[in-house]
Amino acid sequence: MRVRGAPLIGATAAHGLALALAVDPSDGALERAAMMLLGTRPTAVNLAWAIDRVKAVIKDCPLEARGSRALSEAIQICDENALECEAIGDHGLALLKEVVDRRSGAGRAVSSASPLQILTHCNAGWLATVDWGTALAPIYKACQAGLPIHVWVDETRPRNQGASLTAFELREMGVPHTVIVDNAGGHLMQRGHVDAVIVGSDRTTSAGDVCNKIGTYLKALAAWDNDVPFFVALPLSTVDWKISDGLVEIEIEERDESEVREISGLTEGGAIETVKLFSEESSAANPAFDTTPARYVTSLITERGVCAASRQGLSDLRAQAGTKSPLEESPVVSKRIGVTGGRRVFGISSV
Amino acid sequence: MRVRGAPLIGATAAHGLALALAVDPSDGALERAAMMLLGTRPTAVNLAWAIDRVKAVIKDCPLEARGSRALSEAIQICDENALECEAIGDHGLALLKEVVDRRSGAGRAVSSASPLQILTHCNAGWLATVDWGTALAPIYKACQAGLPIHVWVDETRPRNQGASLTAFELREMGVPHTVIVDNAGGHLMQRGHVDAVIVGSDRTTSAGDVCNKIGTYLKALAAWDNDVPFFVALPLSTVDWKISDGLVEIEIEERDESEVREISGLTEGGAIETVKLFSEESSAANPAFDTTPARYVTSLITERGVCAASRQGLSDLRAQAGTKSPLEESPVVSKRIGVTGGRRVFGISSV
Repeated sequence: MRVRGAPLIGATAAHGLALALAVDPSDGALERAAMMLLGTRPTAVNLAWAIDRVKAVIKDCPLEARGSRALSEAIQICDENALECEAIGDHGLALLKEVVDRRSGAGRAVSSASPLQILTHCNAGWLATVDWGTALAPIYKACQAGLPIHVWVDETRPRNQGASLTAFELREMGVPHTVIVDNAGGHLMQRGHVDAVIVGSDRTTSAGDVCNKIGTYLKALAAWDNDVPFFVALPLSTVDWKISDGLVEIEIEERDESEVREISGLTEGGAIETVKLFSEESSAANPAFDTTPARYVTSLITERGVCAASRQGLSDLRAQAGTKSPLEESPVVSKRIGVTGGRRVFGISSV
Repeated sequence: MRVRGAPLIGATAAHGLALALAVDPSDGALERAAMMLLGTRPTAVNLAWAIDRVKAVIKDCPLEARGSRALSEAIQICDENALECEAIGDHGLALLKEVVDRRSGAGRAVSSASPLQILTHCNAGWLATVDWGTALAPIYKACQAGLPIHVWVDETRPRNQGASLTAFELREMGVPHTVIVDNAGGHLMQRGHVDAVIVGSDRTTSAGDVCNKIGTYLKALAAWDNDVPFFVALPLSTVDWKISDGLVEIEIEERDESEVREISGLTEGGAIETVKLFSEESSAANPAFDTTPARYVTSLITERGVCAASRQGLSDLRAQAGTKSPLEESPVVSKRIGVTGGRRVFGISSV
C-alpha cells in the first residue's frame, strides 16, 4: 500500500522489474521479481499487464541490455499513462458538456452560482496515476475550460482516500469541493444535487463489469435509481480481456481488519494519532473492492474515447487501440498538471 | 444528541414535558416547553407524537394535577414502548423463520456453522428505545429461540452508532457479529453473505416511505438488486399519517460538519481522543437521514404485525391499532432484556 491506484501500480511494477534486472538480468531473477511483484496486490490488472509488457520487450535482449531496455519500457509506460489520462480528461470533458446541455435543456442551466455537480468515490486522480488521473482528469479539464464545477468527495472508508487524497488534489488544483460520508451520496442524488458520478476502475472485465473501491457499487445503484449518469474512467490497460463476469472471476482483496477498527488523524496539537473505533471483542471484516455490473454503468471513458460498458463497446475500442500507441500519436509528454518535474503545480490557473 | 433513537426521543420528550409541568403547570409554560422540545430534532416524528399525547391528556386537568398526570402518561409511553418493541421482536422473528425456510428450500440450511446472516445499519436496539429495540428486537428474539444468527454491523458514519452502539449491544447480548464499513454491505449482498436486512425508522410516511439514518437507502437498493429481503421495524408511533411522500415532505436534519471532519476513539494508552480527518480548507456536508422509497421495502414490522410498506398495509394495521392499546392487552411490563431496573443484563442466557 505504499503505491495505490491501478495505473500507478502498473507503472511502479514496471520500474520495479527494471530495478531487479539492473541488479541481475538472468531469467531466474526476472521470474522471481515478477512473482514477487505480482503477489503484492491481487485485484488491479495493470500490475500483471505492466509486468507482461516489460517481460515481452526484454525476452530477446542480450542479458547486458535487459536492465536498460526494461527501464526505457517502464519510462514509456509512465509517459503513455500521462497521455492516456489526459486523453481520458478530454473525452470525459466532452461527456460532461453533454450533461451540462441536458441539464440546461431541463431548465437548470449551469452557472457559477449553480455549478455542475460531480460525485466521486475514492481517489482516481494524479495521486493514483502518473499524471492527470482517470476519474478526476475530466474534472480538471472542465476547470481549465472554465466550466463551473463542484465535486462531492466520498470520504471512502476505511482508508479515506477521498477525504485525504482526492480532497487534497482538489484543494491543490483549486476545484470547489465538499467532503461527505459514504452514506450521503444516495440522498444527494435523490434530491437532485448530483449531475454525474465519475469513478475509476481497478479492473474492468471484457463485458464492462467494473471492479473498483468498495462502495462504488452502492453509488452506481443510487445513480441508476435517480437517472444520474454513472461514468467510469479508465485506461484500456485496466481491462482484463480474459474475463467477463466481474462477480465470479475477480478475486476481491480482503485487507487487514485494523483498517476498519482504527483510524488516523491530526490531534488538536497537530500530531498524527491513531484511535480505535470499537472494542476488540467485536469482529471486523474488510473487503477492499466491489464489482459494479455493466448494466449500471452509463459509459466507460477511455483514452480512445467513450464507449458503452459492454463487450461490443470495449472490443470496438480495442480494435482501434491495436493500430497506434498514444505515444506514436503524440510523442511529446506535455501539459502535465499534477506534479511536474518533482514540483507540485498549485491551482489550475498556473498550469 | 444526548438522546437518540426515535422511540426514545418520544419517551424522553414526554418526561421533559412532565418535568416542565411539575415546575409550572400553566398553559404558557406548557406551550413554551413543547416548542423547546419540538425544536430539538426535526426528523423523528415520535417527538411531536409524544408531546401531543401528553398535551391531550392534561388538557382538561386542573392545574394542580397536570404535573402528575403528565408523568403518569410519560411512564405509560415508556411501558408501552417496551411492550411494542417486544411485540416487534416476536413478529420479526416469525419473518426471520420464513427467511430461514426459504434459504433451506434453496439448499442452504441454517446451522451454527452457517448462521442466518442479518445486516443492520445504525442502532435501533435497546439503546434507541425504552427496551428491546426495533430492528434488533427480532435478532434478540431469534437468539432466545436458539436460531443461529450472525449480524453484519454497518459502522454508520459519521457518528458510528453501528460500531459504537449496536456492536456494544450485541456484545452485551452475546450475539455473534462483525463490524464493516458502510461501503461493504452491497458487496456482501452480491456474494450471497446476507439473508436479510433489518433497520429501524425515524419517520415513516402513510405510504410506507422510510426516513432513517443516512445510508439506509443505499442498503435498500443493494438488497433490492440482490433479492435480499429489506425489513423496517418500527412502532406505529413512528408513522407520520399526515404525509405520504418521504422525499418531498420530510425535512432532513443537516448536522454540524464537525461530525464528518472529526472522529473520536481510544488511543493506545486508553484515552479518548478526537482527531481531524482532513484539512479545514475542504468543505464538508452532513445530512443526517435519507428516505427509502416504499418500493424498496419488503415489509414493515410493527407491534401490530407485519404489513406491506404501502398505504393499504399501514391503514389496515392502524385500524386494528385503534381498538386496543398494547398495555390493555398485556398490562404487566415484563421480560425486559436490555436494562432492567438500572442494572444491565449480560447475555441472552441470563434473561
